[in-house]
Amino acid sequence: MSKTTIESFSCPLPKMDYTTIQLAHGAGGRLSAELLEKVFLPCLGNETLNRLDDQAVLETPGGRLSFSTDTFVVSPIFFPGGNIGDLAVNGTVNDVCMNGAVPKFLSIGFVLEEGLPISELHEIVTSVRNAADKAGVRIVTGDTKVVEKGSCDKLFINTSGIGFIPEGLHISAANLKPGNKIILSGTLADHGMAVLTARKGLSFQTTVRSDTAALNGLVSSILPVGGINAMRDPTRGGAAAVLNELAVSSGVGIELDERKIPVLDAVRGACEILGIDPLYTANEGKLIAVVEADAAETVLKAMRQHPLGENAVIIGTVTGDNPGQVLMENSLGVKRIVDMPVGEQLPRIC
Amino acid sequence: MSKTTIESFSCPLPKMDYTTIQLAHGAGGRLSAELLEKVFLPCLGNETLNRLDDQAVLETPGGRLSFSTDTFVVSPIFFPGGNIGDLAVNGTVNDVCMNGAVPKFLSIGFVLEEGLPISELHEIVTSVRNAADKAGVRIVTGDTKVVEKGSCDKLFINTSGIGFIPEGLHISAANLKPGNKIILSGTLADHGMAVLTARKGLSFQTTVRSDTAALNGLVSSILPVGGINAMRDPTRGGAAAVLNELAVSSGVGIELDERKIPVLDAVRGACEILGIDPLYTANEGKLIAVVEADAAETVLKAMRQHPLGENAVIIGTVTGDNPGQVLMENSLGVKRIVDMPVGEQLPRIC
Repeated sequence: MSKTTIESFSCPLPKMDYTTIQLAHGAGGRLSAELLEKVFLPCLGNETLNRLDDQAVLETPGGRLSFSTDTFVVSPIFFPGGNIGDLAVNGTVNDVCMNGAVPKFLSIGFVLEEGLPISELHEIVTSVRNAADKAGVRIVTGDTKVVEKGSCDKLFINTSGIGFIPEGLHISAANLKPGNKIILSGTLADHGMAVLTARKGLSFQTTVRSDTAALNGLVSSILPVGGINAMRDPTRGGAAAVLNELAVSSGVGIELDERKIPVLDAVRGACEILGIDPLYTANEGKLIAVVEADAAETVLKAMRQHPLGENAVIIGTVTGDNPGQVLMENSLGVKRIVDMPVGEQLPRIC
Repeated sequence: MSKTTIESFSCPLPKMDYTTIQLAHGAGGRLSAELLEKVFLPCLGNETLNRLDDQAVLETPGGRLSFSTDTFVVSPIFFPGGNIGDLAVNGTVNDVCMNGAVPKFLSIGFVLEEGLPISELHEIVTSVRNAADKAGVRIVTGDTKVVEKGSCDKLFINTSGIGFIPEGLHISAANLKPGNKIILSGTLADHGMAVLTARKGLSFQTTVRSDTAALNGLVSSILPVGGINAMRDPTRGGAAAVLNELAVSSGVGIELDERKIPVLDAVRGACEILGIDPLYTANEGKLIAVVEADAAETVLKAMRQHPLGENAVIIGTVTGDNPGQVLMENSLGVKRIVDMPVGEQLPRIC
């Protein structure tokens, strides 16, 4: 009958660095974190949301579900290696499976700009279908909104996904322990540089392709090995953001070996020309796994046998020193702090 | 290991009335249906999606889940009676519960325009929290994207929701049978006219308020009565669109009595001035239930005891004649066809 009165929630407007939204509030760096900590969490926070994992773990009578959402606003909507359609499927599949869940169902919500060619929409929806088939998930519900010309930029896509977490599995950003090894599944910065070079119309764009891919197959091929404490896919903010979040969540330090971090030559070249650090650049088909030291070599071997993990390497170690910090040693043996990204390197990368 | 090759899906570009997206493609009428039938379903269709209910029913080991998604692009973002924040919560809660499910978990994805005042965002997020508390659901995962000024209009919100369907309950748009009664839970067109008058700055806006509300409490108060075959909330396209969809899904006719359909005086006045038919106008806190004739009076009585169903009335009957059509008899005894809406009465109403 719901005649009970629920006390209305209110909280004062927080003091923030800016009074209006900046591009960097969506970049996955420090301003994103401020928006989260001062606006979203005080208003919406609860035990599940406060974990700040890329997906929620929901206890249900039939077991634990993994639930995640992501809105895709990438520009341009077509880029070398993919488009906003497969990106939207792969991105949510990846968020759902980073706790070991098996992704099964996706919703899709389109915002279309008046005037968008239906041929472009059709090509994107075809990519959605193919990406879903490849990842083994089904699109089960959807929504379409249209806004006036000028009220959005071509199209935005939200996908939300549901997966099932195998019993007994507990993978979380808070599980890192000193001595654990950091494994990266492949080269960094492919997606970010593919989008950026496409946007700028640069000539090397043909050799730089997005790595957009669903990682659930790779995840299910390494999980049986055991010893995996945490997994994350380094998207916005790149590996630097993810490693900082892991270090903070677990209250540990992380030490990286710069020489071990794989970057394709063409991508490195593009990064150098544009003054961009691959460590801070988005990936859409890579994962970082933090594993027990004695399992590291076996996990690495299993990863390398999967097409999406052929270039996997151990890039660092978890330490008890410098909790919450990521350090990186270069070829000269000099260590520097890898900070949380602050500003917007590449807006609308996903 | 996913080395199996999955055959790539492709389908030819369909012939359509327009080659570019029109506002009416998002209006819930005939052009929306064409986009669905010629683009979305041929590419993405599967047994679950093809049902075209407002929510997917997912079979899981622990029972059936109800899963729904909706992106909200309402303009203006603040309107009499609510804002885009509570609308986004209530809209998805309502879609999730129209098959009798108990909504539990919501995701939320924001697209923010650079330059949006953080004070406005804060007010909206506070409304999200209050609406979620009132509906008894938790926001468990979220995402925020920021786009450049001019690339979206202030903010868009996607919510996706999960609910649990009680065992043995089978409510579906395909269940209508001749003789069933059509119950409407209250007055029509409040939301649509509140948004429209706010947009136009009309002076009667103070007396016309959105009916935005979560209907899960009302649903759970009428379900125990039994005899409910179908429920829908008449949002975009209004009661006319929903009744046409029900008639088509079940292959039955529907006859309405125009004199029974409740519309508030202020809303009727606004509709007349603006030349808008309340039957085609969006509601955000009303439901239409199709019930067995012998249960109709008991369901009606239960509905009227709930604050959101005080003005509930039986507005019509399901017939075996005229399958797929909705007819309405006016006070002179003249029957007319209530067509599926074609164009865009009110863009960006939700």
